[in-house]
Amino acid sequence: MKKFMNDPKNFVPEMLDGIVRANPDTLRYVPDYNLIHRADAPNNGKVSIIQGSGSGHEPAHVMTVGPGMLTGACPGDVFAAPPMDYVYESAKLLNSDKGVLLLVNNYTGDRMAWEMAKEMLDAEGVKTEIAYVNDDVAVQDSTYTVGRRGVAGNFFVMKTAGALAEAGAELEDVKAIAEKTNSLVRTMGIALSGTTPPAKGEPIFTLADDEMEVGVGIHGEPGRRRDKMASADDIVDELLNAVVSDLPFEEGDEVALMINGLGGTPISEQYILYGIAHRKLEEKGIKVWRSYVGEYCTSLEMAGASLTLLKVDDELKDLLLAPAEIAIRTF
Amino acid sequence: MKKFMNDPKNFVPEMLDGIVRANPDTLRYVPDYNLIHRADAPNNGKVSIIQGSGSGHEPAHVMTVGPGMLTGACPGDVFAAPPMDYVYESAKLLNSDKGVLLLVNNYTGDRMAWEMAKEMLDAEGVKTEIAYVNDDVAVQDSTYTVGRRGVAGNFFVMKTAGALAEAGAELEDVKAIAEKTNSLVRTMGIALSGTTPPAKGEPIFTLADDEMEVGVGIHGEPGRRRDKMASADDIVDELLNAVVSDLPFEEGDEVALMINGLGGTPISEQYILYGIAHRKLEEKGIKVWRSYVGEYCTSLEMAGASLTLLKVDDELKDLLLAPAEIAIRTF
Repeated sequence: MKKFMNDPKNFVPEMLDGIVRANPDTLRYVPDYNLIHRADAPNNGKVSIIQGSGSGHEPAHVMTVGPGMLTGACPGDVFAAPPMDYVYESAKLLNSDKGVLLLVNNYTGDRMAWEMAKEMLDAEGVKTEIAYVNDDVAVQDSTYTVGRRGVAGNFFVMKTAGALAEAGAELEDVKAIAEKTNSLVRTMGIALSGTTPPAKGEPIFTLADDEMEVGVGIHGEPGRRRDKMASADDIVDELLNAVVSDLPFEEGDEVALMINGLGGTPISEQYILYGIAHRKLEEKGIKVWRSYVGEYCTSLEMAGASLTLLKVDDELKDLLLAPAEIAIRTF
Repeated sequence: MKKFMNDPKNFVPEMLDGIVRANPDTLRYVPDYNLIHRADAPNNGKVSIIQGSGSGHEPAHVMTVGPGMLTGACPGDVFAAPPMDYVYESAKLLNSDKGVLLLVNNYTGDRMAWEMAKEMLDAEGVKTEIAYVNDDVAVQDSTYTVGRRGVAGNFFVMKTAGALAEAGAELEDVKAIAEKTNSLVRTMGIALSGTTPPAKGEPIFTLADDEMEVGVGIHGEPGRRRDKMASADDIVDELLNAVVSDLPFEEGDEVALMINGLGGTPISEQYILYGIAHRKLEEKGIKVWRSYVGEYCTSLEMAGASLTLLKVDDELKDLLLAPAEIAIRTF
């Protein structure tokens, strides 16, 4: 294992320190709860949105905090759910008069932490709602999941809910748009390599030089099958068929198309996949309304990519195009 | 070699096709010259800026085309200089009444193509100037270079020259700001893995499980030495000492600090390096004015990172903060 780090135990805190040093005017860091939050939070008149799954999926979620996106993120260690008190304390700290939406990816550990925290927050009169994300079509149940996993489609849920919260909507409405977005988004991924959590020091799984894992999870969970490496055309066919048939997406639909890099795959290859997927969707009569190419939800240094489709209507388009700002920026 | 691609010979064209499909309103693609250019180019009243080194360094340069950045990019194949006619034809196509700045990274093949093209363009009365980028402090001459290599610092040169061109400046002034920026920027990189060009199918170099290449080039050129893997603290010390002592950067200076991922290193590790570098600069009395963290100039899927410092004054700050838009965007 070669990683840019010091003591593996400090991988997450040192990353969080780097994020806040890079964004001193806009972000704050509360080390006790691994919490990165907007410097101006909480804002009365605006619902706060908090997320925090395991670390190792960056930019999700600690680097997607900012106006029009998350109010805060309080992740656990790498691939580990946040302790319940991180969630509880973060929600109390970021609570606004409009309440707090807890955005929870569907993993057993995450659900447990967030649902327990919600009970305690309810008892204290902190107004909260939970919205779940479970966009991965690869498998029904998985290593850490009852039901489907939440993966890269989470970006679109953060974006639409974040935009509506920024516009001053009520908690029920912000929850409703998160649920609507989640209901219209589908994802599947493929791994070309394993991934090594810093504290573990060994890969969670390994693939031979000619193998890929079709439908992999973002913690290295098994997908639908392991197979021989295929061409980009064949890989896109497989991902697209799985995703399109699931909702299903139909001729005449308009979609946002995301190719998400899993951490070790360069942007050049992501654009190759994007171009093929865009062309094949057009051939199916599905209109690509907007492109999203890059790293949105990774699995440390895993080589691989996922394909996400979101069916868009005018309401979602407006929210997706609303201004937003996060730690990750080019300029 | 596992990559998301079809025929390795089509790696670059399929990537370019993906870029333009992802940005149909703002970019155009001329397959004959591997040219990606702004849809609205050329703009009379604004200097055009063209670059195009080898492919495999994305987002540089085909994904950094847009208002306030490059007018166009016409790269060669992976790690290969563009043929002279790509450069010549691209400059003619994108020529404006204010002329064309050719922004050339200092590699022998690139220089030859661009300098020959400039001679032909001169003969035809197309007004051009060349500005060179050579920010890599690792070694003096290198595998493909007489003098220093141009690497991630190129981003800052594109950004300042692009902003000034967008503001309507004259060709001499746009060239001068590119040269000023290049004179104030310094970079050094470290590789944790080799990298495999698609058509070659084998790594250019390999590193043992406990090795790193200190001062690596973006085509896998050897750096200063090969050494045992070190902690992030020690790596930052080495990069920072090499870069700071070179200009030299001094107590009281204000700098832009860039941590650039080389393609296979996740953003989490890049932020760990960033946080350490930011802290160590402050300890030296050098003020970090602005952060740049992410992939700016890669070497395909190479695991590794580089550290860049740019000494900024009010003129450079204004140009760096000027609005710009490129293919790579989060939202």
